[in-house]
Amino acid sequence: MSEDQQGYYVLPGQEYTRDTTYIETRITADGRDGYPVEAGRYRLVVARACPWANRAIIVRRLLGLEDALSMGMCGPTHDARSWTFDLDPGGVDPVLGIERLQEAYFKRTPDYPRGITVPAIVDVPTGAVVTNDFAQMTLDLSTEWTAFHRDGAPELYPERLRGEIDEVAQLVYKDVNNGVYRCGFAGSQRSYEFAFDRLFARLDWLSERLAGQRYLVGDTITEADVRLFTTLARFDPVYHGHFKTNRSKLSEMPVLWAYARDLFQTPGFGDTIDFAQIKEHYYVVHSDVNPSRIVPKGPDLANWLTPHHREELGGRPFGDGTPPPPPRPGEVVPEGATPLRVG
Amino acid sequence: MSEDQQGYYVLPGQEYTRDTTYIETRITADGRDGYPVEAGRYRLVVARACPWANRAIIVRRLLGLEDALSMGMCGPTHDARSWTFDLDPGGVDPVLGIERLQEAYFKRTPDYPRGITVPAIVDVPTGAVVTNDFAQMTLDLSTEWTAFHRDGAPELYPERLRGEIDEVAQLVYKDVNNGVYRCGFAGSQRSYEFAFDRLFARLDWLSERLAGQRYLVGDTITEADVRLFTTLARFDPVYHGHFKTNRSKLSEMPVLWAYARDLFQTPGFGDTIDFAQIKEHYYVVHSDVNPSRIVPKGPDLANWLTPHHREELGGRPFGDGTPPPPPRPGEVVPEGATPLRVG
Repeated sequence: MSEDQQGYYVLPGQEYTRDTTYIETRITADGRDGYPVEAGRYRLVVARACPWANRAIIVRRLLGLEDALSMGMCGPTHDARSWTFDLDPGGVDPVLGIERLQEAYFKRTPDYPRGITVPAIVDVPTGAVVTNDFAQMTLDLSTEWTAFHRDGAPELYPERLRGEIDEVAQLVYKDVNNGVYRCGFAGSQRSYEFAFDRLFARLDWLSERLAGQRYLVGDTITEADVRLFTTLARFDPVYHGHFKTNRSKLSEMPVLWAYARDLFQTPGFGDTIDFAQIKEHYYVVHSDVNPSRIVPKGPDLANWLTPHHREELGGRPFGDGTPPPPPRPGEVVPEGATPLRVG
Repeated sequence: MSEDQQGYYVLPGQEYTRDTTYIETRITADGRDGYPVEAGRYRLVVARACPWANRAIIVRRLLGLEDALSMGMCGPTHDARSWTFDLDPGGVDPVLGIERLQEAYFKRTPDYPRGITVPAIVDVPTGAVVTNDFAQMTLDLSTEWTAFHRDGAPELYPERLRGEIDEVAQLVYKDVNNGVYRCGFAGSQRSYEFAFDRLFARLDWLSERLAGQRYLVGDTITEADVRLFTTLARFDPVYHGHFKTNRSKLSEMPVLWAYARDLFQTPGFGDTIDFAQIKEHYYVVHSDVNPSRIVPKGPDLANWLTPHHREELGGRPFGDGTPPPPPRPGEVVPEGATPLRVG
C-alpha cells in the first residue's frame, strides 16, 4: 500500500485515518465480475517492503500459484504519486511494459483519484488494474484459484474456521496491522497514546492466546497467521523506532517473538522478507516523519534464526499439505537483505 | 547543553560537529581567574534533561555541595535562543531573577554569539555566567571546592588515577557521549554509519573492560563513571529511536546494562534522573528530527530497578567515603518521572 496524501503522512492535530476504499472487483472461478480465474492472464504487482503486499506474496507462494499468476515487483521507495518498477532493467515491468504502477490504475480509471497502492492485480491483456482490495485478494487466492493450487497446498481459509479467522483478523487489523500506522502517523500526542495503548493491549492478548497454541486459529497455519506475521516482521526493524511503538521490542515479548520466528523459519514466510527494502521504504518515503531520510543501521537481525521451540506445542504447519519448494530463481531475496542467507 | 544552530540540528550532507568553544573562566580555591570558591556566591544552572548538565548534578550531590552551591533548574524544552526557567513559579529563577538563561550570558558578554548551554555557573552578585565549560566544571567541583565537600565525600578525580580517567573519558566522549549526537544529527547516511560503527565498537570495548571490574577506573566510582552514566541513562528512552543508535538497546548489552543499573541504584545517580524530562527534551526540541514533536510512551523503565549482581565483582563504590544522603526536598525528581518511586 502507499500512505500518501500529497506526500504528507502526519496531519497535525489529527488522528491517522486510512482510506479504505479499494477497487473491489473480484477475480473469481465463475468470472461473475468479468474477470475469471485464468492461468497467465493476470499479474500480481507487489513491493516487498509493503506489509499488505507481503501477505499476497506469502499466500501465492504457499499455494504454489507462481505459474498461474506472475508477479511484478516495485522498488522499496516511491514518490508522492506512484510505486515504480525501478528494480527492473530499464525501470520497466517486463510484462506490463510500464514504469509506474499509476499507469495501470489510469487504464482502469482515468485520473484515478485515490492512492496508488500495492498489492494490485493487473489484467495483462488490457493493462488495467482489476483489484487492489488487499484483504479480499488473499482470500480469493485461497478459495477461487483452487484449480491452480500446487499439490500439497495448505488450506489457509478452511470453511469451518472462517468465522474465527475473520474475527481474529479484524481485531489484528484494527489494533496491530493498522494500529502501528496509527501510532506512527498520529498528528497529536493524544491520538498517538490511544493507538499505542490499543496496540500493546492487543499484543498482550495475542501473547496470551499464543502461549498455549502454535497458531492463531486451529492447529495449522491460516490466513490469520499470514496477516499478523507481516506486521511482526517489521516491528523491530521499523515500527519500534520510526512509528514509536516502543513499549518493548518484539524480541522482548517472548511468546510473540517465538511465534514470529517459527513462521519466519517456515518455508514461504521468511524467504519473502527483504529487511533491506523494508527499512529503506519506511525511512525514505515518510520524509515528514524522518526528514533526514537516513536509514538506521540496526537492529541486528540474525536473531530471527534462533531456535523457537514452538514445535513443542504440536500443531501441523501445513495440515494435510506440505511445505512449498524453494522460491523461484527470479524471486529470491538477495543475500544481505535477509538473515536466511547471512550465516 | 543546547545543540542549537538557528533551530536546525541536522545539516543536510554534513557531519555533525559540536561547537566546543566554551567560557573557560574557572572558579578556583585561589581565585586566580577572579572567581574564588565561596559558599553562597554562585549558582549552578542545569536542566535535568541534559546529559552534560546531569554530570554536574550528580557530582554536586555526591560531594555534598548543596549548601555551598545552589542549583537552578531550567525546564526540559527551550526555543532556538535559550533554556528558560519555566518550571519556577512565574517562570523566574528565584535567585537570579531571570526568565531566560540567555540573560546571564548577556551579562557576561553582550550579544554572546554562541549556544546558550547548560550547565552554567552564574556569579549571583553580578548575575553573569562565570563558566559553561562542562568538562572542567565537574573536575573543579572535585578538586577546587574541597573546603565545602561533605564528610565522607568520595574522591571522584584522585590524583594517582587522573591519567587513566582522562584517557578513558576522552574515548567515551568522542565515541559515546558525543557519538550518539553524531548519529542523530548526521546529515548523510555515510556520516551516520561512521558514527554508528564507532559508537558500538566503543560500547563493545567498554563491555569488555567492565566485564571483570565494577567501575571504569580503579575500584571506586570516579568522574569517568559519571560521564558514561549520563549517556547510558538516555540510551533506551531516547537515543535508540530518536538518534537511530539501534544496533541493540542498552538492555540488550548485558555487561553495560548491569553496570548502568548498578550506578542507577547508587545514591546520587538514579535519583538525579528524570526520564519524563529527558524524553520531552529531545523529542520536542529537535523538531527537525521529530517534526510531530510526539513523545514516545515507551520504553518500560521499571527494569532499571532489577538486580544487577555487580557487587560480586567487589569494588568499593565510595572508596573510604560514604553514600550521599537523600536529595534535598526541593531537588527530588517527581514521582512518575522515575522508576525509583514507581513501586
